[in-house]
Amino acid sequence: MDKIKEKLENIKSKGLYRNFKYLQSCQKSRVTIDGSEILLLGSNNYLGLSDNLLLKEASKNAIDKYGLGAGGSRLTTGTYDLNKKLEEKIASFKNTESALTFSTGYMANAGVISSLCDRKWVIFSDKLNHASIIDGCTLSGAKLVRYKHCHMDDLRNKIEIHKGEYNLIVTDGVFSMDGDLAPLDEIASIGKEHNILTMVDDAHGLGVLGKNGSGTPSHFNVSSEIDIHVGTLSKAIPSIGGYVAGKKHIIDYIKNSARSFIFSTGLPPVNLATALESIDIVKNSDEKRKHLLNLVSWFKENLIQLGFQVPNTCTPIIPIIIGDPNICTKFSEYLLEEGIYVNAIRPPTVPKNTSRLRISLMATHTYEDLEYVIDKLKYYGNKLNII
Amino acid sequence: MDKIKEKLENIKSKGLYRNFKYLQSCQKSRVTIDGSEILLLGSNNYLGLSDNLLLKEASKNAIDKYGLGAGGSRLTTGTYDLNKKLEEKIASFKNTESALTFSTGYMANAGVISSLCDRKWVIFSDKLNHASIIDGCTLSGAKLVRYKHCHMDDLRNKIEIHKGEYNLIVTDGVFSMDGDLAPLDEIASIGKEHNILTMVDDAHGLGVLGKNGSGTPSHFNVSSEIDIHVGTLSKAIPSIGGYVAGKKHIIDYIKNSARSFIFSTGLPPVNLATALESIDIVKNSDEKRKHLLNLVSWFKENLIQLGFQVPNTCTPIIPIIIGDPNICTKFSEYLLEEGIYVNAIRPPTVPKNTSRLRISLMATHTYEDLEYVIDKLKYYGNKLNII
Repeated sequence: MDKIKEKLENIKSKGLYRNFKYLQSCQKSRVTIDGSEILLLGSNNYLGLSDNLLLKEASKNAIDKYGLGAGGSRLTTGTYDLNKKLEEKIASFKNTESALTFSTGYMANAGVISSLCDRKWVIFSDKLNHASIIDGCTLSGAKLVRYKHCHMDDLRNKIEIHKGEYNLIVTDGVFSMDGDLAPLDEIASIGKEHNILTMVDDAHGLGVLGKNGSGTPSHFNVSSEIDIHVGTLSKAIPSIGGYVAGKKHIIDYIKNSARSFIFSTGLPPVNLATALESIDIVKNSDEKRKHLLNLVSWFKENLIQLGFQVPNTCTPIIPIIIGDPNICTKFSEYLLEEGIYVNAIRPPTVPKNTSRLRISLMATHTYEDLEYVIDKLKYYGNKLNII
Repeated sequence: MDKIKEKLENIKSKGLYRNFKYLQSCQKSRVTIDGSEILLLGSNNYLGLSDNLLLKEASKNAIDKYGLGAGGSRLTTGTYDLNKKLEEKIASFKNTESALTFSTGYMANAGVISSLCDRKWVIFSDKLNHASIIDGCTLSGAKLVRYKHCHMDDLRNKIEIHKGEYNLIVTDGVFSMDGDLAPLDEIASIGKEHNILTMVDDAHGLGVLGKNGSGTPSHFNVSSEIDIHVGTLSKAIPSIGGYVAGKKHIIDYIKNSARSFIFSTGLPPVNLATALESIDIVKNSDEKRKHLLNLVSWFKENLIQLGFQVPNTCTPIIPIIIGDPNICTKFSEYLLEEGIYVNAIRPPTVPKNTSRLRISLMATHTYEDLEYVIDKLKYYGNKLNII
C-alpha cells in the first residue's frame, strides 16, 4: 500500500498528476464546464456529429426497441441484428470482405494483434504507435521490433535483420499526438515485397481523410493492399467501440480467438444504432471535411507565423510542442481562464520533454472561433517565453 | 496469411468454431431469434433491468442533453458531470472511499492490475480467474503464481514459497463459467495475515449477492477488508463499462497510470446515465433477488435429481457439464429447436473436456418457464446419453 502512495507522490512531484474536467453539456465546439461556456479545442468529434438529430433519433429508437445493455458476450447472447448490419456496413465502407466490432478500439488492437500473432511472430511497430497496439504486442508474446517513427529506411533495415517465419507490420494511420500520417503507400509496398502482413489502426483518419472519409489507406490509395484495418466508433463516429476489417478468413479467425472479443460484453444496442446510422452521414460529409481541412491549414499557417513549434501535418490534430510539463499545464490553464479548453498532453502519453498543447479542430469550428484562439495563443505564448 | 487459414481450419476441425445468434429484440426472458420467440437462458441481465422504463427514460434524456459519444479519453475531453455522480455512487454502493469507471470490465481488470503491479510484484491468481485478469497479469510483467481453484491450502502454500516484496491476491467473486464463489472470508484473512493486497472482480456478484446486492464481499461480510473491488456495469447493471473501487490514493494512482484507462475514449453519456440510474434500482431489488435465488435452488435440485452433473453453487450461473464440445453443441441445438436458448461453452472459454451448457437465470424467469426447460433437458439428456 505504501508503495502505491510513493508512486502517486512521485507522479505529483514531477508535475504529471492529472485531474478531470467535468463537462456539463454535449461535446460540441462550445461546452459548459463549471457553469461557463468554453470553446472546446480538444475533441475527437471531428465532424461534429455528437448532437446530430438523426443520430439522436436512431439511438433513442434503439432504446425503445432493444432496451439497454447487451446482456452477454458476443458469442453468447450479446449479438443483435444491429451488429450484423453494422459489421456489413463497416466492411462495405472499408471495402473489405468482412468486419467485426469490439467493445472499444483499445480492445480491437489488443485482441487482433494477440490473436493473430504468437511467440513465433515478429512484429514491426512504429515507435509512436498507440498504447493499445503496444499492449496487443505484449499480450501476443511475439518478438517486438520498433522502428523509428515513420522512417521507412529504418523499417527496411530492421526487416533485413529481424524478419522471422511469420511477420506483421503495424502502424497508426494518423498518429494521435502528432497528427502526422504514416506513409502507407510505402508500408504497403514493403509488406508486398517481403510478404509481410500489414495492419493499420486508423482511429483518427476515419471520417476525415480519403474518399468519402473512408480513411488514411484510401488517402494513399492503398486500401486494398492493407491486410488488416482497425478503427474506432468513438471519434468521427460518435459512439463507442472499435472494429477490425479485412479478408473473411482473417476476421473469422479473430472472432474465434481474440480474447478481448470473446471475454467481454458486446456493445449495447443503443451504441450499435448510433454507429450504424453514422456511417452514411460520415460518407456524405464531404463539405464538412473540406471546411475542416481548410480551417486546419489556415490555422496552422498562423501558428507557424507566430513562431510556435508545430509539426508539418494535414490533419485536425495540431500539437504545439512546449517541452516542459509544468509550463504546458500553465499554458492550458491560462487558456481555460480565457474560455478556451486545450489539452496539455504530458508523459506517459507523449515522450519526456515533448509535453504539448494538443489542439484538435472540428468541422463545427469557425474562422472567428480560431481568430480568438490565435490572439490568446500569441499573448500567452509571449508571456511564457515560448514564441 | 496461410498460417491464419490453417489456424482457422484447426478450430473448425476440433468442433470449436463459433457463430453468432442474432437477437432481434431486447435481452428479456423471451427474445426473438430468426423471427421466433425463444426462452433465453443465457443472459447476464440477472435482475431483468434491460427494459426497465425508468432506465430507458433516463438514458433517452441523457441523449437529449449530452448528445452521443464521449468525444475523448477521460483525462482529455471525455469526462462528464455524469462520471462524477456515477463514480461517487459506485464508491458509496461498494462502501469505499473512491471509484473510477473504465470503458469495459475487461479494461478495468487489465488496467488496474498492470498499473498497480510491475516486475517487482508477485500475483497470486485463482486458476479459473477471468481472461481479463490473466491479461492484466501478462501486461504487468509481474511474476504470476496460479493457485488451484478456490483451494486455500494451495494458496497458503504458494505464498510460503513465492512471496516477494510486493504481492497481490486476485480472484473472481463469482466464477463466470462455474457459478461458484471464492472463499473471500479466508482470502481476506490470508491477505491480512501476510500483508498482501487483495483484489476481487465481482462482475457476476454485483446486484445478485450481499446486502442490497452490493456483491460477494458483502455476502461474506468482508467488504472493508478487500483492498480493490473491480466490477462491471454490463450485467445486473444493464449498461457497458467497468469500475474499480477502493482507497482514494489507490484510485488516484490508477487514474494516473492505467493504460487502458488513459488511452481509451470514455463512456458515452447515455451509458453513464443508464448505469447511474440503475444503482438505486439494483439496491432496492431485494424481492427480485429473493425470487431469483429461490428459482436457482429449486431448478438445481431438479437437475441434480435428473442425474445431470451440476456443481454445488448458489448463484444464477448453473453449468451442466457435458465434456465433449460436439455433444455440447448438439444439445444446445436441440434445445434451440424447442425454443430454448442455452449457450454451449467450449474451450478456450473453459478447460478442455469440460464443455458445458451454461444456464443463467434472470429474476424475470418463472417456475413455469423452468418446468418446460426441465422437461426438455430430461428428454435430450436421455437422447444424448448424458443422464
